[in-house]
Amino acid sequence: MNYRMICRVLGWILLIYAALMLLPLAAGLWYGENVLNFIIAIGITGSLGGLLLIPKPRTNSMVARDGFVIVGLGWIGISLLGALPFVLSGSIPRYVDAVFETASGLSTTGASVVTDIGGMAQNYRGDMFWRLFNHWIGGMGVLVFLMAVLPMSGEHSMHIMRAEVPGPTVGKLVPRARKTARVLYLIYIGLTLTETLLLLCGGMSFYEALVHSFSTAGTGGFSTNPASVGGFGSSYIETVITVFMLLFGVNFNLYFLILIGHWKDALKSEELRWYLAIIFGSAILISLGIYKLYGSLGETLHQAFFNVATLLSTTGFGTVDFTEDWPEYCKWILMLLMLCGSCAGSTGGGIKISRLIILNKNAQAELRQMIRPRNVVRVQLDGKRVERSTVKAATTFFTLYMALLLLFSFLVSLDGVDIPTSFTAALSCLSNIGPGMTRAIGPAGSFAFFSDRTKLLLSLAMLMGRLEIYPILVLLSPRTWKR
Amino acid sequence: MNYRMICRVLGWILLIYAALMLLPLAAGLWYGENVLNFIIAIGITGSLGGLLLIPKPRTNSMVARDGFVIVGLGWIGISLLGALPFVLSGSIPRYVDAVFETASGLSTTGASVVTDIGGMAQNYRGDMFWRLFNHWIGGMGVLVFLMAVLPMSGEHSMHIMRAEVPGPTVGKLVPRARKTARVLYLIYIGLTLTETLLLLCGGMSFYEALVHSFSTAGTGGFSTNPASVGGFGSSYIETVITVFMLLFGVNFNLYFLILIGHWKDALKSEELRWYLAIIFGSAILISLGIYKLYGSLGETLHQAFFNVATLLSTTGFGTVDFTEDWPEYCKWILMLLMLCGSCAGSTGGGIKISRLIILNKNAQAELRQMIRPRNVVRVQLDGKRVERSTVKAATTFFTLYMALLLLFSFLVSLDGVDIPTSFTAALSCLSNIGPGMTRAIGPAGSFAFFSDRTKLLLSLAMLMGRLEIYPILVLLSPRTWKR
Repeated sequence: MNYRMICRVLGWILLIYAALMLLPLAAGLWYGENVLNFIIAIGITGSLGGLLLIPKPRTNSMVARDGFVIVGLGWIGISLLGALPFVLSGSIPRYVDAVFETASGLSTTGASVVTDIGGMAQNYRGDMFWRLFNHWIGGMGVLVFLMAVLPMSGEHSMHIMRAEVPGPTVGKLVPRARKTARVLYLIYIGLTLTETLLLLCGGMSFYEALVHSFSTAGTGGFSTNPASVGGFGSSYIETVITVFMLLFGVNFNLYFLILIGHWKDALKSEELRWYLAIIFGSAILISLGIYKLYGSLGETLHQAFFNVATLLSTTGFGTVDFTEDWPEYCKWILMLLMLCGSCAGSTGGGIKISRLIILNKNAQAELRQMIRPRNVVRVQLDGKRVERSTVKAATTFFTLYMALLLLFSFLVSLDGVDIPTSFTAALSCLSNIGPGMTRAIGPAGSFAFFSDRTKLLLSLAMLMGRLEIYPILVLLSPRTWKR
Repeated sequence: MNYRMICRVLGWILLIYAALMLLPLAAGLWYGENVLNFIIAIGITGSLGGLLLIPKPRTNSMVARDGFVIVGLGWIGISLLGALPFVLSGSIPRYVDAVFETASGLSTTGASVVTDIGGMAQNYRGDMFWRLFNHWIGGMGVLVFLMAVLPMSGEHSMHIMRAEVPGPTVGKLVPRARKTARVLYLIYIGLTLTETLLLLCGGMSFYEALVHSFSTAGTGGFSTNPASVGGFGSSYIETVITVFMLLFGVNFNLYFLILIGHWKDALKSEELRWYLAIIFGSAILISLGIYKLYGSLGETLHQAFFNVATLLSTTGFGTVDFTEDWPEYCKWILMLLMLCGSCAGSTGGGIKISRLIILNKNAQAELRQMIRPRNVVRVQLDGKRVERSTVKAATTFFTLYMALLLLFSFLVSLDGVDIPTSFTAALSCLSNIGPGMTRAIGPAGSFAFFSDRTKLLLSLAMLMGRLEIYPILVLLSPRTWKR
């Protein structure tokens, strides 16, 4: 391993993260708040970053595991440092809570331990900005950002990009990783600003419109309102957010294809078609179950689509408390959406639809082969053959995902909570969603009551979910550190 | 497909099944009951079997999918016919209920819709014998029995055996399938009679000792006592049953190895070691949680081991209602045991330990390859390399298993039951266990309150679990029936 190179990249990550703290600092200043917490946090993060840049790498060479180690350590590092402003200002006084909140922000989960959202939104506007801005930073990834702004050679960047961008495969949009990273960030910024504008039209303040766009863009789920998006009481705002949650759940490669005029190729994507089918299918099934709760067809469809969008895109905004009145089968649909997650190459979490398509086709191929052993059946996606190694990676990922889901559920249950709470807390964190399926941790609940041990475990689960397991496993494996 | 050959084998299955009904008929006669129900059922089953033998096969050739179709149709057929005695006598008046009970018996699940077990045990001793005897028939498999008694050529038999015997691979014990089947049944009968003897020593009547041995041997879980095994109030009986539940959860190949003097090879089995580690590990973890409930260390360990044995072996006998007082984390351990299941080549259900070992090693190999891409890592079991196709089959099986578990959970939830009830009802049926993790369907509960639709779906889930999914999927796939 090239330790000096790893230090160097980690140093750059911390410097950039420190620089990003200038935005909440500015927001705090604008609202006349004490911003000493940000000044100290920037000082600590920046100095650590600077120290890491001191050892000069002897060579530029990097291998795959260096990429995983950088991504794993980088994300854990910024989760620990991003918690500082909350603790220093006292908006989230306990460090463990602040780390949970930051990991939840960066991993775009949106599970919260803040019990007085209203108070925080009023008295700590800088901190609240930082809380939601972390969703935006984590959504596209701080390393992709690094690649967009720093000159790094293509091979190294791909190792890092593969480790940070979700999905079974990373398509190179353009020959050079740096350009890809820039294109991705431009689309990301463009969509975020469009949403901000549309929310402004709905009567939100600029501050609220901007931070809710950050939260939507990262498919995060934090809100400045104690009653989440539902608290604004505006169907228009809810509809805009529904549409943008779904847009940020789409593979960004498709936007690139559309930008360069390849509309048809984008619309042919099997993953996109499944994504749409899942959205409409589950919204209709749910509507049948909740119609008696909302009376009018319009309101029923509105609630069904909003909640399907919020869980499938793994955002986690809330309008109603579905854990209370919704029929049990609707909760199952919502849980299946949480497990499924959004498209590969989006900012959303979960197993990812393209992986599930591959798993389904693989199982069908296996069945066909059993029925007619002489026919050799290959898995295809979008008309192209899927490499065996990709199929294998998808099945192994699924195994690890389910194993971790059950392991974390068991560990959460040590806090004494019931089966649905422990299961959906683990599911919600691993899939980067936010709310669970019981009242305590539902859209109207909070993760504050869990023990410190469980909060740290769930923070790890959130990072594992966001980074798609391997970087953290590589970090934890003794083999990585052997010569 | 060789339809005539399929008919022929199905005919033999029905004839044998009809012949097996003579045993409960004899039991009914012994207790002076009206046995007209068995006479009619034998008549119908026997005549159908006879009719199916009429078309003479033109060739003896058989392909893999013929084996799957025979196993799938055979098991569905006997589930439908085995229900007749219950309906005809009125011990289980509704046909859907009787089918559920028979499928639960044959698949060795042990989930019951009989609400008055005490009344049935008193007034319908023949029917009760039949109910528990089905566990014994289903445990080793009616087709393995067929192979043991009928002269069939090796190649055909292996197709059938692969489809009926649980586990990732079927080892040929001896060169010829017929001999293998005979050896398996001899071990099976030997262990069953030993248990009967030991239970007799504990003060059970011969009838009770025999039928409970049937139930243990098949890792089924039906009992003649409304309070299950706990109802006999004997620690000795519970201990004997604990030991035998665990013995029937072991791969029968190991008994064969021991019989021919290869002790050391048997004890080297990785699956056996994991099986023992799981038993002791989970019993100890559970003991820590339930000690305060039972006070004495002896009683705590007794209850912990009994309940670990009953769920890991997928039997489902009960002594206490763990859904009531046991801590939540203990319920999670029990659920994980239910998912895991016993060893391949045993009479138990679940995913099977050897498959989980393969999945674990496969994931580790994938991780190693990521850390050092140049090293090629192969999965090994018991010192031998596991074929890629076996690894692929294990991962695909796991995918299908989890997909079916979630699908059946969702479908059960349409009955309006809560998340833990729907989830553990599906899990319990798919893993062939019996009780679930909530009071309604726990050791003291019953599946009687479910709708007919759910009962039929769960019957299908039980058969899919017992036959390890593929035979039923092959049966349902349109591709099977295309020329």
